Amino acid sequence: MRVIGIDPGLRNLGWGVIDTDGSRLSHVANGIVHGSGTALGERLLALFDGLSEVMARYAPEAAAVEQTFVNRDGAGTLKLGQARGIAMLVPARAGLTVGEYAPNQIKKTVVGVGHADKRQVAHMVRLQLPGAEIAGPDAADALAIALCHAFHARAGSRLADAIKRAPA
Amino acid sequence: MRVIGIDPGLRNLGWGVIDTDGSRLSHVANGIVHGSGTALGERLLALFDGLSEVMARYAPEAAAVEQTFVNRDGAGTLKLGQARGIAMLVPARAGLTVGEYAPNQIKKTVVGVGHADKRQVAHMVRLQLPGAEIAGPDAADALAIALCHAFHARAGSRLADAIKRAPA
Repeated sequence: MRVIGIDPGLRNLGWGVIDTDGSRLSHVANGIVHGSGTALGERLLALFDGLSEVMARYAPEAAAVEQTFVNRDGAGTLKLGQARGIAMLVPARAGLTVGEYAPNQIKKTVVGVGHADKRQVAHMVRLQLPGAEIAGPDAADALAIALCHAFHARAGSRLADAIKRAPA
Repeated sequence: MRVIGIDPGLRNLGWGVIDTDGSRLSHVANGIVHGSGTALGERLLALFDGLSEVMARYAPEAAAVEQTFVNRDGAGTLKLGQARGIAMLVPARAGLTVGEYAPNQIKKTVVGVGHADKRQVAHMVRLQLPGAEIAGPDAADALAIALCHAFHARAGSRLADAIKRAPA
């Protein structure tokens, strides 16, 4: 299964694509789409076009986006919401259902503790995906989101297998 | 000039299209796009597809969106931000720059006072656009945004004319 993780932001939208095959994980690509332009519409369009291009190039079969913190100031939350709308829209346009994970759920899955800092997350991403050149912190976060989704999907399919094997 | 006004919301996204010709205003169409579906991605896709269809059908040359209140709870602001991202993206994809007006600026322009309530706004929209059948409160708000943009564009072009006519 090919999974894209997306870390939404109006200036920098991180993305990371991984392949999972049973318990094997491999890095495909990662990067950052910049919301360039001065007007908000232009910036959202740059995010939409850039992320659409990534989707077309790597054709992931599953997508996951970080659930955003909402305890910052209202103006910041609104800006992030607008970028997040694009991050959710683009995979939905490709017919994918989009998984959502809270930041501490992603950290707990990838690092083992919910209160890990960004460096720990990036470190564990590098350990899980050896040889991956990571475009920046937002791309590392996006890869962590993709890993989190892959782990949860795998756990879900193991559970489904166990239920199938269980005596009726 | 044909103007579309958009009142973003995740459940109900209001839109209204008007034509302006000098000081003459006329109603073209209005309606509501519903963010149907259970998953957030689905709802955003329904808004995107519905609004894209409206843009293709009426081919407005200018667009305006309400600047959103951010003094509600964080979760509500984030939801609204996501819908607003779509409302800003769709006209930007059509090559339009998108005007943004604060709610009290819209009310002040359309009703004359910044603290007007929704019924007053709807009343003034009906007076300005006689005969228009209005699909609901969100569509009335969208028409008010379009009227606000038309008035400001007209004032801007009068100013430009006055500057042209002024002795050098």
